[in-house]
Amino acid sequence: MIKPRTMPGVLELLPRDQIAFQRVLDTIRRNYERFGFLPVETPVMELSEVLLTKSGGETERQVYFVQSTGALEQGGQPELALRFDLTVPLARYVAEHEHDLNFPFRRYQIQRVYRGERAQRGRFREFYQADIDVIGKDALSIRCDAEMPAVIHAVFAELEIGEFVIQLNNRKLLRGFFEGLGIADAEAQNGVLREVDKLDKRGPDYVRETLTGEHFGLSAEAAQRIMDFVQIRSSGHADALAKLDALGQGSEALNQGIAELREVLELVRAFGVPESRYALNFSIARGLDYYTGTVYETHLVEHPQIGSICSGGRYDNLASHYTRSKLPGVGISIGVTRLFWQLREAGLIDTADSTVEVLVSLMDEALLPHTLALATQLRRAGINTEAQLEARKLAKQFQYANRAGIRFVAVLGEDELAREVVTVKDLRKGEQFEVARAELVAALRVEIEQARVMRAKREA
Amino acid sequence: MIKPRTMPGVLELLPRDQIAFQRVLDTIRRNYERFGFLPVETPVMELSEVLLTKSGGETERQVYFVQSTGALEQGGQPELALRFDLTVPLARYVAEHEHDLNFPFRRYQIQRVYRGERAQRGRFREFYQADIDVIGKDALSIRCDAEMPAVIHAVFAELEIGEFVIQLNNRKLLRGFFEGLGIADAEAQNGVLREVDKLDKRGPDYVRETLTGEHFGLSAEAAQRIMDFVQIRSSGHADALAKLDALGQGSEALNQGIAELREVLELVRAFGVPESRYALNFSIARGLDYYTGTVYETHLVEHPQIGSICSGGRYDNLASHYTRSKLPGVGISIGVTRLFWQLREAGLIDTADSTVEVLVSLMDEALLPHTLALATQLRRAGINTEAQLEARKLAKQFQYANRAGIRFVAVLGEDELAREVVTVKDLRKGEQFEVARAELVAALRVEIEQARVMRAKREA
Repeated sequence: MIKPRTMPGVLELLPRDQIAFQRVLDTIRRNYERFGFLPVETPVMELSEVLLTKSGGETERQVYFVQSTGALEQGGQPELALRFDLTVPLARYVAEHEHDLNFPFRRYQIQRVYRGERAQRGRFREFYQADIDVIGKDALSIRCDAEMPAVIHAVFAELEIGEFVIQLNNRKLLRGFFEGLGIADAEAQNGVLREVDKLDKRGPDYVRETLTGEHFGLSAEAAQRIMDFVQIRSSGHADALAKLDALGQGSEALNQGIAELREVLELVRAFGVPESRYALNFSIARGLDYYTGTVYETHLVEHPQIGSICSGGRYDNLASHYTRSKLPGVGISIGVTRLFWQLREAGLIDTADSTVEVLVSLMDEALLPHTLALATQLRRAGINTEAQLEARKLAKQFQYANRAGIRFVAVLGEDELAREVVTVKDLRKGEQFEVARAELVAALRVEIEQARVMRAKREA
Repeated sequence: MIKPRTMPGVLELLPRDQIAFQRVLDTIRRNYERFGFLPVETPVMELSEVLLTKSGGETERQVYFVQSTGALEQGGQPELALRFDLTVPLARYVAEHEHDLNFPFRRYQIQRVYRGERAQRGRFREFYQADIDVIGKDALSIRCDAEMPAVIHAVFAELEIGEFVIQLNNRKLLRGFFEGLGIADAEAQNGVLREVDKLDKRGPDYVRETLTGEHFGLSAEAAQRIMDFVQIRSSGHADALAKLDALGQGSEALNQGIAELREVLELVRAFGVPESRYALNFSIARGLDYYTGTVYETHLVEHPQIGSICSGGRYDNLASHYTRSKLPGVGISIGVTRLFWQLREAGLIDTADSTVEVLVSLMDEALLPHTLALATQLRRAGINTEAQLEARKLAKQFQYANRAGIRFVAVLGEDELAREVVTVKDLRKGEQFEVARAELVAALRVEIEQARVMRAKREA
């Protein structure tokens, strides 16, 4: 007898939690499609040679390698590895299918990725990412950068997880500002950016000490100016523009960063995003060196401890390892598994009701054909229906439906059959009503639709 | 520069094919939910010890093993492996979560599985399976066996891939029949069943020779009776019952098999499945030894070469490796990747239209805010909309929409703005019409809904 268990670091859910999780995935997908992004799926395995083009380092240490039984017996290095994000597979996909794609190429991808993380609470070795990217050929308009916050806004408004703010910054602005302080070298700028990126986690004292320490050797004044700069936040649209104006003129990079942020802000508003939902935050750099312009983070106002729930940015060239074509892009990513886990921990997502909307009861074996016929009628009308296939006491059937999160139980006994009616128990409202058989579908549809509208209203 | 490519044996699709594939997955999922099955997802990796409990043999040779970078460096046998089907993970899941599940437990699972197959055309190393199973505790009513054909019927009717027949058999019936021929040993019966299962692929001569050959040593008469028996097919409901009646009485297993098939047939009809859609086929045994009762295959009438597109059966005990509880079940599986590939090869599935329903055009940079506002209006009304973010000649935008499979282009120039109208080009109908801005959403909805109804009608 083997103990049934999963590996550590995966999130396996009971059905009603899986339904709640699936609703999050569906909401994300629906909104990605609403904005005109096209679906892509890539194999979970890539050739190691193709996947691991990068410098190695941290990413490579976290990779899962794959070998078939045959390859394992032959020995040698594994030729396959599991994807650790959706960006490298996207780069490979776009380079491979370049001549079959329309550019700008707008794709969404919602799949699991794998990282050999050390096991700890809230860290996952298998997790869903839900990404969108727009990839240009040779060039990509800054206007695409403004579309990302519009999508983020649509997704999280519909997820109904409380107030959130999409925080914007621009790496050109940061670089330009550093140049003004005499930090001209790109490597040194990246080093400072990485330190600034730790501000939230490590606090200002740590960052100040590091910047004035041996490695960076900045003056106390320069360090202070950096610290003051990265603490700039805007509140509302006009204030965001005013904060940009206050920066004045500087290096070419600074001016360009300001101009880009200004255009993005104006268009984010034109996309209909409420001004309470976006703000400048000059501390945001994003750890990854490949972002070159706009960067995004998204924070829940009431749950800052959760950190960014959706991040991304603009990059100069997606696929330089695979093609000589220049492919600039902009994208965002939602780490759905971690988000779901955190929202559940914070009490913002509950176990869902069942996907089953109606249980058709069975009290008497002889009535089975009638139960099946009623279930078929409901299914053909688009109502998710479970038919009770073995007769049990009605109380047991109500108890089962209640425990399973099924809202309606349709009761069809001898009496109901004779009178051509159905008794419907609404377990959510705790009510019971009788309805003519011919009007059952319409009655249930009204109730189900009303619940949907109520939910949508709460979300709006 | 590294050549961008995927491993052999995977199906990676361009966006419009991915949309067609996604529609197949969505249709399967919708129908599984319609019948009251609950979603489950399991991790792609299982502990090798848990996954590979079986005797080994063929399955084990095809497994992909997984090791993190750290584990690989340490050497030793891999502790993780990719699932090769959804049945073993289901067994592990049900045994692990036994006390948190309601029984009969009705779950669907649509995920990818992995097999280290030798690479050849039409064989996949990564492919989607879409399974449903009903798992009982201690016992499970035969009535559940009758629900499977109802689900199969609903799925494939909606997929609109031509006429199909769900073929039914029962392994008790087969065993009982063999007992009547003096083949009493379970091992020998399984051996004969495996040979009979090759009838379609190898032909009757091969099977007859094998059965009368050294290993089985049957008389020519017994072999002939087997061959005659397994060629029995029914045509229509009454004929199916008559074919069962004609078998008369025999061993307990035979009688039980007949009784079970009779009950399943009656209930399949009560579930509303048209009688042209199901038939007895006594040759169906399914290769897997763990089926013990009803077995199913589904064949496309016009495309017999495709083989079974949905198969499954009844088994006595799902999870004997993981729990002492007795968990009988019944289930079916659709190999979606292979099915999609074959349907495409046979010309039954075409590249899909885009998920994008409307492209909002932009002819003049100054009008961008209006384009964005119109796109936002459409999106809020639930219409999938791409906004053209850079001005181009209108002809280019039509051309782009046409190539991308987007049906509508909404044109909003100075003139339209002044008159508060929108010009809509319907690329499918090749028509163009003007509509008041306030009525645009309603007009598009009517068109989109009509297309949906037309499609549903064709499918019905």
